[in-house]
Amino acid sequence: MPSFLPIDPDSDFSIHNIPFGVFSTAESAEKRCGTRIGDTVVDLRELCRGKAFDEVSGFNSSVFEQSTLNDFAAQPLEIRRAVRSHIQALFTLGASQSLEHNKELLDKATYDADEVKMHLPVRVGDYTDFCASEYHTANAGRLMKVPGPPLPPAWNHLPIGYHGRASSIVISGTPITRPRGLRPPAPGSTTGPTFGPTASLDMEYEMAAIVGGQGNQLGESLSTGDVMENIFGLAIMNDWSAREIQGFEMIPLGPFNGKNFGTTVSPWIVTLDALQPFKTNLPQRENVPPMASYLHEADAKPTFDIELDMTVVGEFILAAAGEDEPTHVMHSNLKHLAYSFGQMLAHHTVSGCPMQAGDMLGSGTISGPEPKSLACLLEITERGTKPFRTSGGQERVWLQDGDRVDMTAVAKRTVGGENGNVGFGVCSGVVKPALV
Amino acid sequence: MPSFLPIDPDSDFSIHNIPFGVFSTAESAEKRCGTRIGDTVVDLRELCRGKAFDEVSGFNSSVFEQSTLNDFAAQPLEIRRAVRSHIQALFTLGASQSLEHNKELLDKATYDADEVKMHLPVRVGDYTDFCASEYHTANAGRLMKVPGPPLPPAWNHLPIGYHGRASSIVISGTPITRPRGLRPPAPGSTTGPTFGPTASLDMEYEMAAIVGGQGNQLGESLSTGDVMENIFGLAIMNDWSAREIQGFEMIPLGPFNGKNFGTTVSPWIVTLDALQPFKTNLPQRENVPPMASYLHEADAKPTFDIELDMTVVGEFILAAAGEDEPTHVMHSNLKHLAYSFGQMLAHHTVSGCPMQAGDMLGSGTISGPEPKSLACLLEITERGTKPFRTSGGQERVWLQDGDRVDMTAVAKRTVGGENGNVGFGVCSGVVKPALV
Repeated sequence: MPSFLPIDPDSDFSIHNIPFGVFSTAESAEKRCGTRIGDTVVDLRELCRGKAFDEVSGFNSSVFEQSTLNDFAAQPLEIRRAVRSHIQALFTLGASQSLEHNKELLDKATYDADEVKMHLPVRVGDYTDFCASEYHTANAGRLMKVPGPPLPPAWNHLPIGYHGRASSIVISGTPITRPRGLRPPAPGSTTGPTFGPTASLDMEYEMAAIVGGQGNQLGESLSTGDVMENIFGLAIMNDWSAREIQGFEMIPLGPFNGKNFGTTVSPWIVTLDALQPFKTNLPQRENVPPMASYLHEADAKPTFDIELDMTVVGEFILAAAGEDEPTHVMHSNLKHLAYSFGQMLAHHTVSGCPMQAGDMLGSGTISGPEPKSLACLLEITERGTKPFRTSGGQERVWLQDGDRVDMTAVAKRTVGGENGNVGFGVCSGVVKPALV
Repeated sequence: MPSFLPIDPDSDFSIHNIPFGVFSTAESAEKRCGTRIGDTVVDLRELCRGKAFDEVSGFNSSVFEQSTLNDFAAQPLEIRRAVRSHIQALFTLGASQSLEHNKELLDKATYDADEVKMHLPVRVGDYTDFCASEYHTANAGRLMKVPGPPLPPAWNHLPIGYHGRASSIVISGTPITRPRGLRPPAPGSTTGPTFGPTASLDMEYEMAAIVGGQGNQLGESLSTGDVMENIFGLAIMNDWSAREIQGFEMIPLGPFNGKNFGTTVSPWIVTLDALQPFKTNLPQRENVPPMASYLHEADAKPTFDIELDMTVVGEFILAAAGEDEPTHVMHSNLKHLAYSFGQMLAHHTVSGCPMQAGDMLGSGTISGPEPKSLACLLEITERGTKPFRTSGGQERVWLQDGDRVDMTAVAKRTVGGENGNVGFGVCSGVVKPALV
């Protein structure tokens, strides 16, 4: 189904993607719901006003009049699915519903992606961060010197996680201020902790699942099989971390100021429907104890084969020194996670904790088995002891002021010889100096 | 300043209190902002419509048209303070603004407290739970077998805390379903954890501070001195806990399903202004290391002398066995906390984490030095090993289905021979059986 809109052969946003986001334009600061096809951003509010959704049975398209996607995300799966299919038809060459000859509506409802400003796609009610990669969990346990074995006793039995801070979730492109906090005394030192900017600022490459549908009431639970109904879609997430602040504060109540100063998400929510062609099985793992029934995956392929890449570039400081090529620091894959998003959903709600449309579940750092698939500097540099080399030949350990971290994700295929990619665009953030 | 409304001599809601809450009535399910004086609930929306706030300079009283207090809480302190003083004047005998002869408006705007249904006073954006009592922190560390010393290394340097779950915060009176989860194997057992309802359900007596004012932007910080501007007020909070689920899951990322199945708050937010007559100093503590400058308290009396009480009664099960007298299990005081709410606010934001009106900061369990001041069953029963005796003579350790936990708090005084109490009413919750 080729589109009548131009789509580059390697674009993340083929007609098979149809992600959802929120944007504004230079002419109007009003936030509007949109989708993206190639380099075209489509104003779904305008399409709604142009009656383009009138034939989608049971859909109240006024949800696209909202300034966030929460109300759309809360629609039942069958409605969300029908809307997405309808949008595909609206932009397909020769389809009966195609808008290709409706120049007036197209003019009103389409923008060049470069022209628009993207915003947080949802108002996040609650944000939770899991730790679903066995590789990351074991590496981080060892490097952060968590008491006990590197893999915590509970990890093989359940997807461990913690509640994160929703108020500091920001859209890609928002600068992140280097946080200040208490840094522990050096080992053997007789002085106490000192207050100041973190000297071990890190990123973590994660994927975020955005909750959709009606969720569950207090005291009720969801199951792994509810994942299609209750996960609206995925986005890339950068869980910025201040390692020495985190290490000092986290026993026994978990990460706090070491994490709550900023979490960046990519602007387009890619639906699980779009990712269906990329389904795959969870990693084969050995010596795993039996899992509680509520965590059983009915789906043999409950995860996705999505290629993940991360670069760092010293946008301000290093550019002045002649270094302006991003350094590729990671190539990983979502399929390295040991737990599925369905299992995270089931675990989170088994206690009776309510999920609501717009809530966000982070996967945890998606490190894989290969050195190149380590997804944070804690692991890449062995907690600052083994520098990596930038494209300009510098040795580096932690993030410096002015560094920009870019994360991308794409599931690639061709459909009938045409671009069938389902990608996420970029999740980007620049480090600003600490407050003095 | 006596009120023309009847106020019992021992009522929590003297004219010196003027707390804020949200209610509905049998005639209308619409949620409205209100206050309470004695046993009278006052409809602030109706007062606003009756132009009773027109003379409060700079106040847009339409914030009382909202179904939550978030917009009112976000007003600057000077406006919130002026509104509260004005409400006092409206209900004071003989005051020039007194409504005592405005029978029409009084009829429209007043209800008997027994007639109304209370709702969550604010939409909680983010909820954080601190651990500010040294007694509780040391007891819980020892009893939960947290690795390392009972008092975590960071505790003397900063108020440790974790991000909690906002979606499961409920108003007093909401039943709490006993949560299910993974219970660790018995020590020495060769079998794995088992799935089922918690067998160690607990309550924790805490106070919650509700954030007010404009808060701070991402990357900026608040200081201890911002507490009056940025804390709207306090409420009682019951941080229900499933101890064996919590114990199994919490290393290294902190409490999760052991806490996120329900957090109950009392309906009336008591302002810090109302609590000014009860200001007191933090506990004298010995051998405390120097504190980082951002945690210094400019105020010599940054906490409050508020008496706290807790009872448990087997509302369903024990009543049938002839036991219907609540068992008084705790008498404590807010002044036992080692850190002030101003210090919690400064610590939470020192990283640059944004605070927004309606956010909630739990104090942690307010245990004191006396056996009777231990504020959760974990401590009262030494993790289920030392039963307490109910008023009916039964031996009990953890909460049973049908148990009701009631928490009250009051700062008492007389003013000119009249009731000057500033109390919180009751924070109540009944345990429902687990899902099967």
